[in-house]
Amino acid sequence: MNVTVCGCGRWGSFLAWYTAEKCGHAVTLYGRESSARFQQLAQTRSNGMLTFPESVRFSSDLHAAVQSAQTVVISIGAQNLRSFLQELSEAECAGKTFVLCMKGIEASTGLRLTQVVRTFLPNIDLAVWVGPGHVQDFQQGIPNCMVIDSDSDAVKRRVVKIFESPLIRFYFGNDLLGNEVGAAAKNVIGIAAGMLDGLNKTALKGALMSRGTREVGRLIKAMGGQEITAYGLAHLGDYEATVFSRYSHNRQFGEDFVRGVPYDKLAEGVPTVTALLELGERCKVDLPICKAVDAVINGGQEPNQVLGSLFLRSIKREF
Amino acid sequence: MNVTVCGCGRWGSFLAWYTAEKCGHAVTLYGRESSARFQQLAQTRSNGMLTFPESVRFSSDLHAAVQSAQTVVISIGAQNLRSFLQELSEAECAGKTFVLCMKGIEASTGLRLTQVVRTFLPNIDLAVWVGPGHVQDFQQGIPNCMVIDSDSDAVKRRVVKIFESPLIRFYFGNDLLGNEVGAAAKNVIGIAAGMLDGLNKTALKGALMSRGTREVGRLIKAMGGQEITAYGLAHLGDYEATVFSRYSHNRQFGEDFVRGVPYDKLAEGVPTVTALLELGERCKVDLPICKAVDAVINGGQEPNQVLGSLFLRSIKREF
Repeated sequence: MNVTVCGCGRWGSFLAWYTAEKCGHAVTLYGRESSARFQQLAQTRSNGMLTFPESVRFSSDLHAAVQSAQTVVISIGAQNLRSFLQELSEAECAGKTFVLCMKGIEASTGLRLTQVVRTFLPNIDLAVWVGPGHVQDFQQGIPNCMVIDSDSDAVKRRVVKIFESPLIRFYFGNDLLGNEVGAAAKNVIGIAAGMLDGLNKTALKGALMSRGTREVGRLIKAMGGQEITAYGLAHLGDYEATVFSRYSHNRQFGEDFVRGVPYDKLAEGVPTVTALLELGERCKVDLPICKAVDAVINGGQEPNQVLGSLFLRSIKREF
Repeated sequence: MNVTVCGCGRWGSFLAWYTAEKCGHAVTLYGRESSARFQQLAQTRSNGMLTFPESVRFSSDLHAAVQSAQTVVISIGAQNLRSFLQELSEAECAGKTFVLCMKGIEASTGLRLTQVVRTFLPNIDLAVWVGPGHVQDFQQGIPNCMVIDSDSDAVKRRVVKIFESPLIRFYFGNDLLGNEVGAAAKNVIGIAAGMLDGLNKTALKGALMSRGTREVGRLIKAMGGQEITAYGLAHLGDYEATVFSRYSHNRQFGEDFVRGVPYDKLAEGVPTVTALLELGERCKVDLPICKAVDAVINGGQEPNQVLGSLFLRSIKREF
């Protein structure tokens, strides 16, 4: 099968390698001509960690790359999804299966990423691919479990068949809304975890996990999904790779932020926290952890006090 | 107030220090005369990490130690609780408040620890004190949240008042059964986590968290408690200190076991897994993670295969 992967970041370039090397498909990795990273990938056939097999070709012609594939994987920054989709026409996408391998909520609208896609492409087959997994571990052959969800069971089954391998075992999700919101929200919990690490309060990450899952579960439920989805692979199951991992961008961002270490780019959880607070307001759900992260990052409040009072202020019932 | 702490292990000796130093009570630390550790504590007034203030005295006279206190904290190995209680008389315990700071299920009977206490002392005031926290962190002044639960609201409130400080913030639990089972079961999940670490499958600890909480929640529910309690501080909230901590005995035991490193004593999770499987059978709840830990430790099965197949075998629905 011909698969096109759009996006040449850490995860996108891994997906191109994985799809070619582990699933045996012919892969086109699309990136922008102007991207230094794309140029380097195309020239060296390596992303520094992985070397691409012959079955991966590189293209910066988006229309040709999409048209040549039956399945299109998108792995770009969540806030860039809308402008990316504006470049595509409905006609060239018709009949293809799209898979979103990205986590976030559109900050300007509060829309889930599948909702953004549906604005432009209402009739395509569409799935999300979320859950835990470090590129660094997969590269060493360490397997993990991930989730495929979709509003169509047939699409779920098809996508799992295309991408399964002994390295990644897929589970079928059954709450698309919950899996999307949970996957996006784990980046915010990751930032909070990094802040606790940076404040030498790592021990509070236990309480963070317990409260974070509950906060996100409540939001999912209020939005119309299932509360239990917050405790699945897409959210809680991804905490190992976020809350506890030195590889996590979001955790590192939170740690650097409270330590005053300069950071070169915003973590995905930063726009996500704005979107989640907006959703919380619409659905009338209190989101104390999201509020705390926002107060520190966007409100200039003192992190030690904000995070301390989140967990340590008053005695109350647990549930 | 006079408080007696029974048990001079890592946690018991910390509790004596904490109760004297942070809560301002007069503390008696009870240990057996024959215990080398107790002798060392009494002679050096230190456990190697903490130095005891003058308000801590040491006693190996159990009856005098219990009689002199209004509140008695018990922190000994769960499987030794029954023989410890056999030494006490109902008369000398009458009117006192007992607090269990220990985690486990009696392996020979499947009884929760408060049930074991009630066999001997049906009328005393009784609470459990569970949840996350490393001695090493508390010693450095890093705060945490913990849970007090009891079958009596008045006892909960009294115990929180006695032991609260800026170092430990208590939440009131409202599911004694769930908090006891959850606290005990986290040691089994800790052993499984150590096994994954030892097998170089650390990345699967995300999936372990997601599945572990669900397995334990199902058991709690079948036993008559509330499923959500598995997601509270006593179980999920203690994963940071167990699943991810180099200080955890249970995690270390699991890692050493699969690596063939000799271990000098059994972790608390080992008898607990036997008890949980018995409870699972009685309540007709399948406990695949407990079964896997048991198969490796007690059944001599190959850990890589047992744990691999737990997470990576077949494709299925997530919930």
